[in-house]
Amino acid sequence: MNILIKQIMLGEKPKDILIENGVFSKISDNTDIVCDKTIDGHGKAVFPAFYNGHTHAAMTLLRGYGEDLKLFDWLNKVWKQEAKLTEEDIYNGTRLAILEMIKSGTVFFADMYWHHSAVIRAVKEMKIRANVGITFMDSLSKKALRENIDFVKNFKSESNPLIQLGICPHAIYTCGSSMYTDCFELAEQYGLKLHTHLAETKSEFDSSLRNNGCSPVAYLDSLGVLSENTIAAHCVHLTDNDAEILAEKGVTIIHNPCSNMKLASGIFNYGLTKKKGCTIALGTDGVSSNNNLSMIEEMKFASLLAKVSTLDSLSLPVEEAIKWGTVNVAKAFGLNAGEIKEGMLADCIILDLSNERLIPNHNLKSNMVFSADSSCIDTVICNGEILMENGHVDNEEEITEIASRYEIP
Amino acid sequence: MNILIKQIMLGEKPKDILIENGVFSKISDNTDIVCDKTIDGHGKAVFPAFYNGHTHAAMTLLRGYGEDLKLFDWLNKVWKQEAKLTEEDIYNGTRLAILEMIKSGTVFFADMYWHHSAVIRAVKEMKIRANVGITFMDSLSKKALRENIDFVKNFKSESNPLIQLGICPHAIYTCGSSMYTDCFELAEQYGLKLHTHLAETKSEFDSSLRNNGCSPVAYLDSLGVLSENTIAAHCVHLTDNDAEILAEKGVTIIHNPCSNMKLASGIFNYGLTKKKGCTIALGTDGVSSNNNLSMIEEMKFASLLAKVSTLDSLSLPVEEAIKWGTVNVAKAFGLNAGEIKEGMLADCIILDLSNERLIPNHNLKSNMVFSADSSCIDTVICNGEILMENGHVDNEEEITEIASRYEIP
Repeated sequence: MNILIKQIMLGEKPKDILIENGVFSKISDNTDIVCDKTIDGHGKAVFPAFYNGHTHAAMTLLRGYGEDLKLFDWLNKVWKQEAKLTEEDIYNGTRLAILEMIKSGTVFFADMYWHHSAVIRAVKEMKIRANVGITFMDSLSKKALRENIDFVKNFKSESNPLIQLGICPHAIYTCGSSMYTDCFELAEQYGLKLHTHLAETKSEFDSSLRNNGCSPVAYLDSLGVLSENTIAAHCVHLTDNDAEILAEKGVTIIHNPCSNMKLASGIFNYGLTKKKGCTIALGTDGVSSNNNLSMIEEMKFASLLAKVSTLDSLSLPVEEAIKWGTVNVAKAFGLNAGEIKEGMLADCIILDLSNERLIPNHNLKSNMVFSADSSCIDTVICNGEILMENGHVDNEEEITEIASRYEIP
Repeated sequence: MNILIKQIMLGEKPKDILIENGVFSKISDNTDIVCDKTIDGHGKAVFPAFYNGHTHAAMTLLRGYGEDLKLFDWLNKVWKQEAKLTEEDIYNGTRLAILEMIKSGTVFFADMYWHHSAVIRAVKEMKIRANVGITFMDSLSKKALRENIDFVKNFKSESNPLIQLGICPHAIYTCGSSMYTDCFELAEQYGLKLHTHLAETKSEFDSSLRNNGCSPVAYLDSLGVLSENTIAAHCVHLTDNDAEILAEKGVTIIHNPCSNMKLASGIFNYGLTKKKGCTIALGTDGVSSNNNLSMIEEMKFASLLAKVSTLDSLSLPVEEAIKWGTVNVAKAFGLNAGEIKEGMLADCIILDLSNERLIPNHNLKSNMVFSADSSCIDTVICNGEILMENGHVDNEEEITEIASRYEIP
């Protein structure tokens, strides 16, 4: 299918945007090609779609469960329920998550969860992009570990360009050194990203000092597992040296401001990571600690938290916040996407410029970061396919109906 | 007009809610009264509407203008443009603001701006509640000052129960001591609230120490203008003694987390104000420093900021955040509203429980604070009148069309 979006605002000017074979093939003042689908861009603007760098999608099923508890009470409660999620639950929860992501303009998510076959089933059906994380922990049985590795080995046969696998050693408090090095080798062998939680809480940091004699980042560096293919979620508790290591090794930090704030994990050090030249992108984390999957909210939280924590209103300006929520995530996961340019993957959202949150239109980028919500998004396109049109996603009634039946066992 | 909402979820149970003469007159398991309007509550929940404790509504016209500037550059830029807003601009900007508020479930706002006749015109047309602030500053001409006072004196004649006036000495850096005491007397004489900016920035705090020999709060206390009728916006920079004064005098603090974060004014001291027993409610501040008027976002920002700044995930729990955005604002402005109870003013919102952000429904209050956005709101009722139904507000196309034409002169 090819798509022509006619006379839509791209930046300051109306353009015709031609989408062929899943890429933006031509962006011009006027094109007269007859396409399978033509979208009238009048009164609308095209904007990059969002990419969610770190989440646990199926946790949507636990939205609002175990609210307002101390971290350890919360973890105990949530983990107990997570263990009860069946493969079918995870399929239904992931579908709900993807629906919520599409509705808020997100076309990619990096997942770290269980029952990856169920996740992949949901991703394929809903035609979004995903890095489906295969989670590793020392507590896995030998059988489960073997199945994980076999799944990775056999995955090549699947030829869906929207899906990639990720190798996810969970965290330094659930994985020992050999689990990390084994995961690193597995990722290298199959050309996959290594995606892990890192330096999320003060207690993780302090434990690492006690147990490893160094910070969590320095510890992983000593194991040789940090590289341009490493995605490190959180990185709230960093020394100066840690930030230098992450920058030098080319690790992408996935900052999850809502989750870090809600769990009182700490304030991400914008000033330090910026000064050291770290690569940063955004994620929502799972719904249990957010409690939604909106990258629009995540950009606003990241920017406002950076400004107030540095006492500098110039911190994390609009352009940078958008990069963190779009192209920086895409790059981290090896996608030639996140901007609307000829030759790039045809992922975009179409905004309704008559929505009150986008009026007046003095600065659309600022309006998107600081004012917009999901009601501003009219259409979502991923890989040249329309996932949402006029605010409606195929099958959404069925997806929400099934998910709404989920009860805590 | 009377309204019957049939079998709608109120808390854990379906109820019939009867609205007569602008109040919730009967809430029961089942009512068989024939009303002018019946709303089918199936698949829906009723929730308190939101009350915005501090804003400058017409600044919607400057949304996104002057982004990412240092505070003083920003103020200069914005003030220069504000001075150019005509009475008609303010009418149009206020209509846009009210539309945005209704769409996000807000039915009351405390405004502090200029051209109050234009603000009142917009408020009356759109049938929302407002405390229309009459702004006072030392820099006003004698004529403008006289007009302000005359307007307050003559306002009694207007008999719109939805509109109250507020007396708004702008701030201690724009009003001298006699302006504050004159305003206090004027407010007392006419039974109005005194609404002012207070202790917003470090520079205001430091200047007060230099000029007055004490903090901003202690200074206003020394003038005798703090009472249960005082509404103090911001209160970011407080000493222990300041928090005690505000609690003892019964002042309501309006916390504006997005604005304080965006302008890098500082982090509101949740722990201190809580410990001292201060009364706290929420506001969005003007769009220029937010950049929207969503009380849903404001509750989330307030709660998450409180949690991370105290490093305690139990800070500002869901129930308290909702009070801050509903009943605490209503009480501060003397309204018997903010909860859905028999005898209280009939202000409420109706939520679409099939919206993906409200699924699953383990905890609706948590879903509203941490997950929801405007897309979850189906219907808005204020004073027993329907302001929005099925997501549509009368005249919204005209309001947005006119406001979208506004260009920076």
